[in-house]
Amino acid sequence: MLMGESAIHSTDRTELKRIPERGHFDRETVNAIIDEAMICHVGIVDADGRPVVIPTFHGRDGDDLLIHGSAASRLLRSARNTEVCITITLIDSLVLARTGFHHSANYRSVVIFGVPEQITDDDEADAALNVLVDALVPGRSSEVRPNTRNEIRATAVLRLPINEASAKIRNGPPVDDEEDMNAPVWAGLLPVNTSFGPPVTADDMRMDLPPSDSVVDYRRPTP
Amino acid sequence: MLMGESAIHSTDRTELKRIPERGHFDRETVNAIIDEAMICHVGIVDADGRPVVIPTFHGRDGDDLLIHGSAASRLLRSARNTEVCITITLIDSLVLARTGFHHSANYRSVVIFGVPEQITDDDEADAALNVLVDALVPGRSSEVRPNTRNEIRATAVLRLPINEASAKIRNGPPVDDEEDMNAPVWAGLLPVNTSFGPPVTADDMRMDLPPSDSVVDYRRPTP
Repeated sequence: MLMGESAIHSTDRTELKRIPERGHFDRETVNAIIDEAMICHVGIVDADGRPVVIPTFHGRDGDDLLIHGSAASRLLRSARNTEVCITITLIDSLVLARTGFHHSANYRSVVIFGVPEQITDDDEADAALNVLVDALVPGRSSEVRPNTRNEIRATAVLRLPINEASAKIRNGPPVDDEEDMNAPVWAGLLPVNTSFGPPVTADDMRMDLPPSDSVVDYRRPTP
Repeated sequence: MLMGESAIHSTDRTELKRIPERGHFDRETVNAIIDEAMICHVGIVDADGRPVVIPTFHGRDGDDLLIHGSAASRLLRSARNTEVCITITLIDSLVLARTGFHHSANYRSVVIFGVPEQITDDDEADAALNVLVDALVPGRSSEVRPNTRNEIRATAVLRLPINEASAKIRNGPPVDDEEDMNAPVWAGLLPVNTSFGPPVTADDMRMDLPPSDSVVDYRRPTP
């Protein structure tokens, strides 16, 4: 599906070979999954040619995915200017079929391939760090003081264009073979629910403050 | 930490270079995280030397991790007899500090490196498939009919010894620098909770059955 310059493009890597109807290549579907998820898993190839998968937080700045970490971290140094695969997964429900074989899950996942670049401009890195904080806790960056130059330089922020990407979605009831449909076994979905709170105030607070708006009204995806 | 033949061994890849106090190398800690998580992310290196990360269900059979998929799947064919990195991540709470810089999460993750082998014996594969169903829904394998030979042979089950592995855990309050401790900003934790249910009965049930015990009493980790 081509949509001009901002198109997500399907390649041999993002195509679904076995169950193609689960594939989605429009930016709106991909972005919604990215925004709802709290973490991603970043795959890199190490110096010996072996895979390494590391969980980290992410944010989205328009058509780019942002990840960050200490400027001293191995992941960030390794993922810069080299091929990565970033995968994001949400589980919506467990799918209980009449047979073990047909058990499954309803899920939404995104896979993004590409070569991240480190943001080197201080102002751009500052803005990107705020996007990352707000991706974790919407509105939080305006509740805390601005980042300092030292903080900005102690953090490596990588930017990966969401171009070679795809979403994969299963959403539906269990599907059994006809010969098992009369089996005396309950079948259906078990929803998986994620909720947040109540907030736990830090013991070392020096002022008696109520929880911030960002945690009281907390919800995902970002409003 | 050596524990005889069943020891998890630390290598250069599983060592934590930057925050070593977050590392755990005992089997009990690693297994508890594996058992509580519903999914893992499997990293492989493709034929062109590029990383691919794919989400999938897993189960644990003693000191081995099991993953499975269609015998026709690219992942399973690629992951067999080659180096993989399997990463499992649980997010327990968001950590809201007084500064954006110190925002974090309390989490528990496991990374396992190794070379999975496909289970080729039918009886062993049958038992492994039941472990995988019960890892998703404890007790479910005894509620459904046994697997057929065709089902067993249509599924590839891979076994990866949990040997070169480590857990990484952050569990604590926000940690800010002294100069920010008097900032008029709420700080604390926002718990992330996962719950299950209520069960949704399939529309095409041909008998009027109540939800199975396995979903009514559903909880993670496996009791």
